[in-house]
Amino acid sequence: MPQATPAEFSLRRCIMATKRVTIQDVARAARVHASTVSRALSPRARALVTPAVAERVRAVAGRLGYVPDPVAAGLRTRRTATVGVLIPDLANPVFPPILRGIESALGEAGYTAIIANTDNDPDRAGQALERLAARRVDGMILATVTHGDPLVARCRKLGLPVVLVNRGGDAGSASSVTNDDTRGIAAAVEHLVGLGHRRIAHVGGPRGLSTGAARRASFLAAMRARGLEAGDALVAEAASYNIAAGVPAAAALLDRQPGLTAIVAANDLLALGCYDELARRGLACPRDVSVTGYNDMPFADRFAPPLTTVRIAHRAMGVEVARVLLAEIASPRARKQQIRLEPELVVRGSTAPPPVKEYL
Amino acid sequence: MPQATPAEFSLRRCIMATKRVTIQDVARAARVHASTVSRALSPRARALVTPAVAERVRAVAGRLGYVPDPVAAGLRTRRTATVGVLIPDLANPVFPPILRGIESALGEAGYTAIIANTDNDPDRAGQALERLAARRVDGMILATVTHGDPLVARCRKLGLPVVLVNRGGDAGSASSVTNDDTRGIAAAVEHLVGLGHRRIAHVGGPRGLSTGAARRASFLAAMRARGLEAGDALVAEAASYNIAAGVPAAAALLDRQPGLTAIVAANDLLALGCYDELARRGLACPRDVSVTGYNDMPFADRFAPPLTTVRIAHRAMGVEVARVLLAEIASPRARKQQIRLEPELVVRGSTAPPPVKEYL
Repeated sequence: MPQATPAEFSLRRCIMATKRVTIQDVARAARVHASTVSRALSPRARALVTPAVAERVRAVAGRLGYVPDPVAAGLRTRRTATVGVLIPDLANPVFPPILRGIESALGEAGYTAIIANTDNDPDRAGQALERLAARRVDGMILATVTHGDPLVARCRKLGLPVVLVNRGGDAGSASSVTNDDTRGIAAAVEHLVGLGHRRIAHVGGPRGLSTGAARRASFLAAMRARGLEAGDALVAEAASYNIAAGVPAAAALLDRQPGLTAIVAANDLLALGCYDELARRGLACPRDVSVTGYNDMPFADRFAPPLTTVRIAHRAMGVEVARVLLAEIASPRARKQQIRLEPELVVRGSTAPPPVKEYL
Repeated sequence: MPQATPAEFSLRRCIMATKRVTIQDVARAARVHASTVSRALSPRARALVTPAVAERVRAVAGRLGYVPDPVAAGLRTRRTATVGVLIPDLANPVFPPILRGIESALGEAGYTAIIANTDNDPDRAGQALERLAARRVDGMILATVTHGDPLVARCRKLGLPVVLVNRGGDAGSASSVTNDDTRGIAAAVEHLVGLGHRRIAHVGGPRGLSTGAARRASFLAAMRARGLEAGDALVAEAASYNIAAGVPAAAALLDRQPGLTAIVAANDLLALGCYDELARRGLACPRDVSVTGYNDMPFADRFAPPLTTVRIAHRAMGVEVARVLLAEIASPRARKQQIRLEPELVVRGSTAPPPVKEYL
């Protein structure tokens, strides 16, 4: 046997180090050419080989524990058919139905989602993006973007198509699929005004997030449009979108505005924080103070009282963002799109007319 | 320039096809050796280069968009520091806190979780496992295992360490971290018997899942131990662990057992299905029928009525399974462990003494 050249030697060492069953191993064992193995194991090319051969190759591949190598496949097609998804907080029930929509639309196109949870931590989000990029995902869906977030720019630098969902980014930097917060918050304010409320306040989300800033602005605009008082004193910003952060925000409003009869919360978890602060003060919802949420997350209809909220089209949002991303993977120069879905008010038990004033 | 050998030529083509910035590109641009780049970008080896050099290399790497290649790194260390996690249903709020525990313990060890949602579909679970294996995860955590499930055997064949969480597998095939269903269900039965209930029935989970089978057996054993009637007529099996599947199961029990005063549900979502069927029949919980859940999932304290349930240590279960898996990645021949965590009864508003019989 002639001596290996240094390059051949490197290649051989590299192959030995991986200790993986290769397509060649399968080809030898099934007594076919490697290209036949490739065809037999590819759903799209399977029709090019006879059923008997396809069956034999699949059986041998199974017995040997052969896994097609997406990196090698990626070298040929430059695609891995996987998409990375960054979720800020899996414990917020709003995200699982969005993920369902994403997975369903990706699945139809033969793509898979790889999910990473960032716990609302920008460092973890950055690390997760690097890990996913290193695994050569074909694109990224970000549900985590904050104002001035470096993640979108980082995706660009890595040459990764990226689309934002639920939260939008800085204008025009990337396509996004969000919901129309202006209409959603206006519907909540209109519902409360229709019930007779005039002193309405807002528990806002973090202003560094597009949803926090947009819902706050929508609230103030909707109040002014109805000739109602609308100033900073009627808004308290929660530090994050969770139940615990809603409690001090509601407390600040109730302290500041004793005549308050309704609170428009920027999401359902914040509305639950309002429930807790009202209960702590011995106030009943909706008898003393009405509360509205935002999202219509799973279980919102099961709370005590069932939550009046603004339903966003979770699943449709997921389906849409996956479609936009797949289009941008196919044509990286496609024009950026800002898609806004229509939200819908869902009236339940947490809103009622304001208490009748007792005149002394 | 001498002509390239065929192996060199293949290597070069391969490198060109990837179009990726390599460690060599960074080394050239930063005017250092590639090994210096490697050290400067590795948290563990950074101390081996001067801060000025480390800073220059990091800056150049950032400007060029260099991503260390985990596959190449994997060829050296044979590790990618990632773990795949299969979750049966992300919409079940019991899983996010388990994931939190997993991510926290993995993070401390420098590992990352890559999550895939299987929607309780064995085909999707199989595909997800293949995709993750192809991405060379170092191990797998399965929260999806069913009785006789081929996933564990497939992991073995791929040489992937695997640990089960929440649901156990067939005895001894893999390490697992579950909770002690016998004690948990016994605590629920004991609580109801203590309140005065005698006619207690069980809405069981799918018997193909370890939790479904174990909780059913525990229920019947706990009833018999207290001298109460315990036969198949007192158990209805739900087709899956969700709210919708709890409704017909509760209906079957209420039709079959008109004297029923309490239902022990095999998880919290099934308990919500019981709430729905009771409401449909005009029965009040707990006045007419008491209901207990299992898991103490997030929001269980917010339902109407707040759910009496058996709390499992979600986060601790996640932390434990990550630790066991990391140990098995480090020592693949480590002895398999079956860890069972202690559950705890949490009494809330869905249980009360049975209605007083009215004698005519």
